[in-house]
Amino acid sequence: MSRITLGNKKEILQKDFFKSLLVEFICTFLYEFAGVGAAMAAETLDGSSLANLFFVGMAHALAVAVMVSSSLHISGGHINPAVTLSLAVGGHCTVLRSLLYWVDQLLASSLACLSLRFLTGSRTIPIHQLASGVGFMQGLLMEHILTFSMLFTVYATMVDPKKGVLDGQGPLLTGLIVGANIFAGGAFTGASMNPARSFGPALVNWNWTHHWVYWLGPLTGGGLAGFVYENFFMPRTPSISLPNDEESGLFYIAN
Amino acid sequence: MSRITLGNKKEILQKDFFKSLLVEFICTFLYEFAGVGAAMAAETLDGSSLANLFFVGMAHALAVAVMVSSSLHISGGHINPAVTLSLAVGGHCTVLRSLLYWVDQLLASSLACLSLRFLTGSRTIPIHQLASGVGFMQGLLMEHILTFSMLFTVYATMVDPKKGVLDGQGPLLTGLIVGANIFAGGAFTGASMNPARSFGPALVNWNWTHHWVYWLGPLTGGGLAGFVYENFFMPRTPSISLPNDEESGLFYIAN
Amino acid sequence: MSRITLGNKKEILQKDFFKSLLVEFICTFLYEFAGVGAAMAAETLDGSSLANLFFVGMAHALAVAVMVSSSLHISGGHINPAVTLSLAVGGHCTVLRSLLYWVDQLLASSLACLSLRFLTGSRTIPIHQLASGVGFMQGLLMEHILTFSMLFTVYATMVDPKKGVLDGQGPLLTGLIVGANIFAGGAFTGASMNPARSFGPALVNWNWTHHWVYWLGPLTGGGLAGFVYENFFMPRTPSISLPNDEESGLFYIAN
Amino acid sequence: MSRITLGNKKEILQKDFFKSLLVEFICTFLYEFAGVGAAMAAETLDGSSLANLFFVGMAHALAVAVMVSSSLHISGGHINPAVTLSLAVGGHCTVLRSLLYWVDQLLASSLACLSLRFLTGSRTIPIHQLASGVGFMQGLLMEHILTFSMLFTVYATMVDPKKGVLDGQGPLLTGLIVGANIFAGGAFTGASMNPARSFGPALVNWNWTHHWVYWLGPLTGGGLAGFVYENFFMPRTPSISLPNDEESGLFYIAN
Repeated sequence: MSRITLGNKKEILQKDFFKSLLVEFICTFLYEFAGVGAAMAAETLDGSSLANLFFVGMAHALAVAVMVSSSLHISGGHINPAVTLSLAVGGHCTVLRSLLYWVDQLLASSLACLSLRFLTGSRTIPIHQLASGVGFMQGLLMEHILTFSMLFTVYATMVDPKKGVLDGQGPLLTGLIVGANIFAGGAFTGASMNPARSFGPALVNWNWTHHWVYWLGPLTGGGLAGFVYENFFMPRTPSISLPNDEESGLFYIAN
Repeated sequence: MSRITLGNKKEILQKDFFKSLLVEFICTFLYEFAGVGAAMAAETLDGSSLANLFFVGMAHALAVAVMVSSSLHISGGHINPAVTLSLAVGGHCTVLRSLLYWVDQLLASSLACLSLRFLTGSRTIPIHQLASGVGFMQGLLMEHILTFSMLFTVYATMVDPKKGVLDGQGPLLTGLIVGANIFAGGAFTGASMNPARSFGPALVNWNWTHHWVYWLGPLTGGGLAGFVYENFFMPRTPSISLPNDEESGLFYIAN
Repeated sequence: MSRITLGNKKEILQKDFFKSLLVEFICTFLYEFAGVGAAMAAETLDGSSLANLFFVGMAHALAVAVMVSSSLHISGGHINPAVTLSLAVGGHCTVLRSLLYWVDQLLASSLACLSLRFLTGSRTIPIHQLASGVGFMQGLLMEHILTFSMLFTVYATMVDPKKGVLDGQGPLLTGLIVGANIFAGGAFTGASMNPARSFGPALVNWNWTHHWVYWLGPLTGGGLAGFVYENFFMPRTPSISLPNDEESGLFYIAN
Repeated sequence: MSRITLGNKKEILQKDFFKSLLVEFICTFLYEFAGVGAAMAAETLDGSSLANLFFVGMAHALAVAVMVSSSLHISGGHINPAVTLSLAVGGHCTVLRSLLYWVDQLLASSLACLSLRFLTGSRTIPIHQLASGVGFMQGLLMEHILTFSMLFTVYATMVDPKKGVLDGQGPLLTGLIVGANIFAGGAFTGASMNPARSFGPALVNWNWTHHWVYWLGPLTGGGLAGFVYENFFMPRTPSISLPNDEESGLFYIAN
């Protein structure tokens, strides 16, 4: 855990930092808009509960793949507080940057849900909730495992410099595992894997039932993935210094 | 906005310009043929309204990904007046070229719809219309946001020279966000994001209800994305001159 | 049309030629097995006609993408007589090779259908037929346009040396347009786009109704795409000699 | 078959070998969790049998693509005893390593099923079984062909050094053919293609009906694909020595 770095004022005063916040805001908004919009469409339209889950899972898979891609070279493509925390645990994002990303992501998610409410004539926005019969421990562990799965993929296919032939495929693969995980866990917890994705709908509906589950599960799962990957799989190359913020288009570490 | 360039007669008299118009025509036709054909199949076949939207969304996602890819290195792969306008706003396509692309795209869309009418025994071609309960402001804003989302992706993953590891994935990602956005907005406005896609069916059915929404929403959304990306995210490299029309296989700027 | 080359005995006596025939056989068999198997599963299982078409379209999309990829570097990845003819029209495959590929593809398709019949306890294999209300001219033109679309994609994303950033994406994109085209045309003609795909089921069921449509439509559509692409879009580089059979891993031309 | 190599104690005492076992365990667990979880969700939710098969097929396609990618550069990305055996047949994985991978994969699969049972309140885990009317020979041959198809793809797009432009696409293509093959064979045998995928559910339910079919079919199919590819298609380059375990990030051979 000694890899965590605090960051300093110098980092956040750079022009690139503002760009990062702006693109995280835009892409989290657009992701949330597509994902929540699709969940609302599935509620509105007529279809079986299985078709409903498939539809929602595919919408999130595609939206994650694209919005991580679109923001990757500017902000690192997080659009998810669990991703931000996991990268901070591995030392790839300062604590200061992480906190500002979190606020940014929550604001973007909230604005997307407010927009959808206006655009659909105040239709209800579906929130993440545990299915009946699913207890807290089960819900927590489900979100923990699904988010671990997603972050392990982020580390293996994007952060790891030895990813080799898969270079550039990370965002698409991250979207695909989001889809598969929603198919597996969506019927039980909604398979959020993203506190910001859960926050906007809860705020706009002012319904906080089980909401903490969608913070604790994803954050511990994402954090554990970062810890495991850094300690067991990340190649150590002490002689090669990491690029600084100005040059790196991908992940941010403290100066 | 000072990046907009007018273009001149020299550009459009080049042999490559004719090739561009021809490939835009062919690929817009083939995109429209697959997209509208799938919408007609969904009307014809038996299935839930949710399955219907998913089917149509996936058809458009795949057709956009492929037809942008197939025309990318010849015409820039627009197949959509909103893309053309957005690139003109960013200075990546002259006004003269843009106008000729627009006419081209509208003709291709119309011919595709006429062909489908003949091939299916004069079956009705479904047009884009606002769902009941969706007002003009809501419809406009929905199309505006969805098209902004698509064009932001085009800029981030294709136009931006710093896209890096994602090089070559832009057309696929553009198709995927078209799919996700149709899942989100299709039940409310049809999620056209493309005035040419809406024009052909309206012409062939001579039904122009709400048609202006499918011009104003996409064009303002696409234009805004170009403006935002150019001004906040596009790296400035004044010393490297941009390739001219003869050499560039991707995007066109005025000489 | 002067690009067509006949080929000679020398070519077909090479060891690599035998490998090409073997891999075309294996991959056409595996493609046909997955595609026809999925069509049989859709008949067997309970689902709406729209879900049926989507299921079949996706199975073909994925199987084409993979089997073209798996045979690409050995035989050129045709697995379809319309692809072979189209490449012959453009001068990328000799007439002699084309004829042997055709026989090969038809045998593989037939064996796949016989295997499926055995494996499923002599269940009926669905054949391609025009839907009721679709005339011969309509069916022919539909298959012609859909196959033109697929082959235009093959030329633009695989054969054209200026495909640039899309290098390597051709097989996947070919699969995706097969999917989109099945969504568009499947309800009317079955959207075969491949005479070998239609031949196996017709043979095993000894049902040749409308069968000629699935040869004439795809072959003329594929041939036209080759002719158009070669004459309007293919860059001419007379000074660079094309690689010979031994070295080229992709497309074959006469020595 | 002379390519098979036994391996020695030196190999398994290396630090990288432990990493390989750990990542195979994690990724097999996460694959099994997503795949079996999706199968359980499909049982739980309401939908047609066709939608059910499509849902399950897509979940496996995506999970295979991602988990092979995530473990590729560390362990070779097997997550399947049939893949391990097939690579051993081709001489790309020692017998010693193969045996330890097998145990590892079976443990991971079992733990994933136990976790799912806990998380869903002891819901039944669906096992692979032959559909009614499908005999042993038919079931065996179906699993044999489907696994041959998958392993042929693994060899052609990952192991073969002449894969060229497809470099890096192997894991995604492997996932896609898993999807297509499930669509084709899922209604008859479940289309396991992976003894570990079948083992976990059988163990947790203590239901071993037909279980041997899911070992014999995939192992012979995968083994045959390795034998065929090595002997007919693998380019021979005796002068270039293969990388040793320490350097190769992809496939392992004996020292």
